[in-house]
Amino acid sequence: VRTLVPFDARDPNSRLGPVLDRDERRDFAAAMLRDVLDAVRAADGDPLVLSTTDLETVQVDAPVRVDDRPLSTAVGDALEVGESRAGDSDVAPATAVVMSDLALATSNALRAAFARPAPGEVAAAPGLGGGTNVLVVRHPAFDPDYHGTSFADHRAAARAVDAPFHAIDSFRLAVDVDGPSDLPEVLLHGSGRSAEWLVDAGFDVDVTDGRARAVRED
Amino acid sequence: VRTLVPFDARDPNSRLGPVLDRDERRDFAAAMLRDVLDAVRAADGDPLVLSTTDLETVQVDAPVRVDDRPLSTAVGDALEVGESRAGDSDVAPATAVVMSDLALATSNALRAAFARPAPGEVAAAPGLGGGTNVLVVRHPAFDPDYHGTSFADHRAAARAVDAPFHAIDSFRLAVDVDGPSDLPEVLLHGSGRSAEWLVDAGFDVDVTDGRARAVRED
Repeated sequence: VRTLVPFDARDPNSRLGPVLDRDERRDFAAAMLRDVLDAVRAADGDPLVLSTTDLETVQVDAPVRVDDRPLSTAVGDALEVGESRAGDSDVAPATAVVMSDLALATSNALRAAFARPAPGEVAAAPGLGGGTNVLVVRHPAFDPDYHGTSFADHRAAARAVDAPFHAIDSFRLAVDVDGPSDLPEVLLHGSGRSAEWLVDAGFDVDVTDGRARAVRED
Repeated sequence: VRTLVPFDARDPNSRLGPVLDRDERRDFAAAMLRDVLDAVRAADGDPLVLSTTDLETVQVDAPVRVDDRPLSTAVGDALEVGESRAGDSDVAPATAVVMSDLALATSNALRAAFARPAPGEVAAAPGLGGGTNVLVVRHPAFDPDYHGTSFADHRAAARAVDAPFHAIDSFRLAVDVDGPSDLPEVLLHGSGRSAEWLVDAGFDVDVTDGRARAVRED
């Protein structure tokens, strides 16, 4: 499955600013990207990183295409290329879009997602907060829209082209690492470089008043 | 599947205090409980509400047992009753524990969870923040522990009795409605009384800076 992995190399994970400085955010974002690429490949995905700028300092083991246009435009064009290759929607191969900050993504969860839509259909996994963390498109006319609460918009976009839409129910694909409140999930459930990076940086899970928080030792 | 649904009738959803007053929290908690009971029954579950006090004002269509002991004790005893009925772990029927604030729980997600453990095994769905939102036990000696990051503790408790442990990967079972940041998930993905209650109370999803929030009109 051809899999686009959009990556914002300019100022990744800016919402982690309260707990990580700029260099740390860049390193952590790179660790997450590499974890995602590993999971994509282990799920028989064929990843292409769509980066907003050159990945100067980030080494990844996947082809990279620089595209500084808005996410919906860049992804839409990349989907079209895949779809024009396919032609007929009856045999449309899947093209997937997997966000680069899914630090909990496993190959099992991605494999199930990739296999979900039949030809002519669309599947998507919601992210916390209404976004679309994984999108799997097998319809030539589907038009992605990553603004705002994109999960609902993608459901509507599928309806607009009469493509059956499947919601993918996965906790591991729902957690995108956006703000500090997402870090305990990585520490609790992650097993790759991202979790390791946090531990090396001194983070640990603390439970106060029944809620888990990621705390950093000084 | 015999399904325990623990419910704190004393001061439910206290963390929603910043956005809902006490009476509203009680009403909303009741709406979520009823949604969960519906989903349990639709998944062929046989629910028993374990309530900390009498459910004076909350009408539910399920048997209620009042047990004011700590959650782990109450659930542990209720599991033991089911297990002593079963006797041999080779044929142990499942007993499930489903939290009452899983406003996104669907019958499909619960059905898959209930079916997950084989005799002698344990399955659990993590909640956001490290808790255990759904626990399905088919082992006579398993000892539940709902303190702190209970998902990891339940994995360890299964290991302690040599019971294979299955993590259930479900977004719909991972979202327990704890604080205000969980409300947009109910508005975005809920379809039952809980979502309806929030809409009737004037809540809507607002997207600012790419993040969804539940806002209430004055």
